[in-house]
Amino acid sequence: MKNRILGIDPGTQVVGYGVIECEGTSMRLLAADVLRAPKGAPLAERLAHISAALEAVVAKWQPQCAAVEDVFVKADPRAALAIGHGRGALLAVLGRHGLLVADYPPATIKRSVAGNGRAPKQQVARMVGTILGLGALPTPLDATDALATAITHSLKSRTQIIVKK
Amino acid sequence: MKNRILGIDPGTQVVGYGVIECEGTSMRLLAADVLRAPKGAPLAERLAHISAALEAVVAKWQPQCAAVEDVFVKADPRAALAIGHGRGALLAVLGRHGLLVADYPPATIKRSVAGNGRAPKQQVARMVGTILGLGALPTPLDATDALATAITHSLKSRTQIIVKK
Repeated sequence: MKNRILGIDPGTQVVGYGVIECEGTSMRLLAADVLRAPKGAPLAERLAHISAALEAVVAKWQPQCAAVEDVFVKADPRAALAIGHGRGALLAVLGRHGLLVADYPPATIKRSVAGNGRAPKQQVARMVGTILGLGALPTPLDATDALATAITHSLKSRTQIIVKK
Repeated sequence: MKNRILGIDPGTQVVGYGVIECEGTSMRLLAADVLRAPKGAPLAERLAHISAALEAVVAKWQPQCAAVEDVFVKADPRAALAIGHGRGALLAVLGRHGLLVADYPPATIKRSVAGNGRAPKQQVARMVGTILGLGALPTPLDATDALATAITHSLKSRTQIIVKK
């Protein structure tokens, strides 16, 4: 059975997304790009823009589920609030389309894709390319981060099924 | 000229809203209530619910602008992230309807409505009732907080116009 996963790297200015199709143990790339909000626009306008753009992605690719990079909340509450704004706008879109949303912390994504929870971005990007059998990597890196999140969800779902047997 | 203002007290579980109509120095209540997300539902589902409910409010009352209670971000980044989720989902809806959104910190709202930046909730609620000429106050208090935010926006816009002359 084929399963489409939408991976998202959230933000209030740039949002990375990637769609992969999984069947058995194989995964293939369907789409990967970034959504950009108009620079310098008020927050509500930027969130509206990325929310509408994500809706178009969901309508086009019809994923069965979504995986979003979770947040490593550091000490700065202002930064956490800003991250929350971006995630909230995107999660609402996913929820309104009835998508189940899984959350994965950055370290889990890096460990799943590159075998090391502290792997640098470039290494994660290379492994994304290897796993999806790509000749060239989708740029920018926000898109490969989103793909890494989708791949993580696919691998984790697979593990869960095995464990349940 | 009549002007409709939508005031919002954001949240991920309960969202207060209030719509007032302003003409000259008079304000009157059009609507005030709370939107509730399904308890215990996953975050994306809750955000989807309040996002759709707010969209219905905007469609019904057709406000010209919106005012949202800003956040007093304390030390806890986890709480700030949660507040951000709620605000982000709501701001995206307002932005997608082309509404200009103003932000007011709680102390500014309390000072505008009750003359004291540290006024207790009940006092703010009483003054909301007085300003709008209400016999009985809309409950729960999240709705009166939202109305206080809308009133603040009306008073501040008025001041700005006077200053500009």
